[in-house]
Amino acid sequence: MSKFLSSRFSSLVPYTPGEQPRDMEYVKLNTNESPFPPSNKVIEAVNSEEVKKLNLYPDPTGIALISALAKTYNVGEENVFISNGSDDILNFSFMAFCDKDKGAFFPEISYGFYEVYAELYGVNYKKVPLKSDFSINPADYYNAGNTVVIANPNAPTGLALSLAEIEEILKANPNDVVIIDEAYVDFGAESCVPLTKKYNNLIVVMTYSKSRSLAGGRLGFAIASAELISDLNTIKYSTNPYNINRLTMAAGIASLEDDDYYKACNKNTAEVREYTKAEIEKLGFTSTNSKANFLFAKSNKVGGEQYYLALKSKGVLVRHFKNEKIKDYVRINIVTKEQIDILLAKTNEILN
Amino acid sequence: MSKFLSSRFSSLVPYTPGEQPRDMEYVKLNTNESPFPPSNKVIEAVNSEEVKKLNLYPDPTGIALISALAKTYNVGEENVFISNGSDDILNFSFMAFCDKDKGAFFPEISYGFYEVYAELYGVNYKKVPLKSDFSINPADYYNAGNTVVIANPNAPTGLALSLAEIEEILKANPNDVVIIDEAYVDFGAESCVPLTKKYNNLIVVMTYSKSRSLAGGRLGFAIASAELISDLNTIKYSTNPYNINRLTMAAGIASLEDDDYYKACNKNTAEVREYTKAEIEKLGFTSTNSKANFLFAKSNKVGGEQYYLALKSKGVLVRHFKNEKIKDYVRINIVTKEQIDILLAKTNEILN
Repeated sequence: MSKFLSSRFSSLVPYTPGEQPRDMEYVKLNTNESPFPPSNKVIEAVNSEEVKKLNLYPDPTGIALISALAKTYNVGEENVFISNGSDDILNFSFMAFCDKDKGAFFPEISYGFYEVYAELYGVNYKKVPLKSDFSINPADYYNAGNTVVIANPNAPTGLALSLAEIEEILKANPNDVVIIDEAYVDFGAESCVPLTKKYNNLIVVMTYSKSRSLAGGRLGFAIASAELISDLNTIKYSTNPYNINRLTMAAGIASLEDDDYYKACNKNTAEVREYTKAEIEKLGFTSTNSKANFLFAKSNKVGGEQYYLALKSKGVLVRHFKNEKIKDYVRINIVTKEQIDILLAKTNEILN
Repeated sequence: MSKFLSSRFSSLVPYTPGEQPRDMEYVKLNTNESPFPPSNKVIEAVNSEEVKKLNLYPDPTGIALISALAKTYNVGEENVFISNGSDDILNFSFMAFCDKDKGAFFPEISYGFYEVYAELYGVNYKKVPLKSDFSINPADYYNAGNTVVIANPNAPTGLALSLAEIEEILKANPNDVVIIDEAYVDFGAESCVPLTKKYNNLIVVMTYSKSRSLAGGRLGFAIASAELISDLNTIKYSTNPYNINRLTMAAGIASLEDDDYYKACNKNTAEVREYTKAEIEKLGFTSTNSKANFLFAKSNKVGGEQYYLALKSKGVLVRHFKNEKIKDYVRINIVTKEQIDILLAKTNEILN
């Protein structure tokens, strides 16, 4: 850090994205991307006529995309917020709904960025331990007195809460915002979007990056009560109002017209996940009952880091976390069956 | 605002982007866009093969684009920072280099977002008055004891400081960061990028939105000492590391290979600006000696708001600011001569 950086950031540890090594071609199972390209309508929408218009700003209100999302999710336009990926929305949410008097509660094992945001804004936070089976105990979040942030399904475990369990958390925190991060919801969990009509303290954060094959486009959205959406817009218009690319706006609209394609892709991912789980367990692994586009698994023979490094040396990247409680595990992005078969074959080589 | 929004934002007034009315087709001279499409290499680079890869994340380090920018600006890769438009970089800079002990100095009349950022982060700030001719007095920023932010050329006046004047400001603030916002520099002012080699307290903020015809792509960059760039990366990796679209990354690289095209476009804009200035002054207007892609002008007959509204009713949008000191003026985006001739004809109608 320079001598100019504000001292409040002197111990800030930024988020570490999944590694993108360039030394060789890897089978990349470490960043939870979709193995499927965007749908044909998206490819048609992002055409050279649109590229020629990149000299013009995007519509900062994004009303065309918001309107399409509102229709898809059966909510009002005033209930939809769009931004540059779901990280952006989580960032805005920590800014808006946490401060020196209001901290945050989130699971001890979860998306690593929650802690980074809490540190960034200097807010108090509690990392709520998971149960021994890695599941979240909803009652731990009742009467939190703080902003609650839960990924559902959770990462990197893949375990999901039910709608009823989330509703109990909402009921027990009427004076605090509850943020449900549904980045992975489309692979098998229940979305709590319908609860936004009943609870004005709920923000559902979603992303196009995974289940809509648009990680490279940078598009996230949130669904919530009109007043919470208005707060998020206050922050967006005070930081970077034009933060969504014109082409992404067009891609976002087009993808909603190809819902069947994405549903088929996500169904395939869920099937390959169950196949991966069954096959890797035959090799002596234990894995959680993931509802996401990744599997969280540990070997009964090799440690997590050892397995990760051995796979990497064989050209397969998975994600390993050094946190003591999950250090035996790796997170495996579910991609095509062909790529998973390479992972399984390499795993076999490592174990034998 | 909701009851959940942090009280520190209770009086925050977000930035107001230039209006984008949809009631009719306007000649849009209100958002400082380029009238020229991106270059052919950009249009070739953003092709359907690239769109098909949008399921993959962009490289968060953006090293290919950083390397191309470093080559173009003759600096090291460690001296380049890229982000989602220059607003994003200004936002990060206020976060990084201002706090409760360190405020900001910026011109009273300038880009409206500086004040929004200062308010957003609750930092003290001084709006330094311009001279009566709207120019900036460099000495007002000597020994500021605060982070200095100056748009050069300034907006909406279009007036520029010389390199020597900026160097004096840098010399007189060795313990504070000086941010020079060069959003409009390519239309006729001098860039102070060369000074980054000599002054470790200088950040030059630039954008692809204007002189590289990529407002819709969302790409900004900064050039500074390695330590300041590292600070900006600390903030970026703690908020939204993947904030640049894959396609934008490709467009950004391709545009650097077509430098002659952009130079020709910018030269044309500068020529049309001088034409506009000469013609509008014949109609009794006064205008500043703008070095940007806009003209700042006032009529000797009609007030700024009246002129803006009269033009709007005739299908031409310019930007008017309600600030008392500049309320007689409008800001006119310099576009094609054909569009400017429409502005001039409508102005003639209004005045006669």
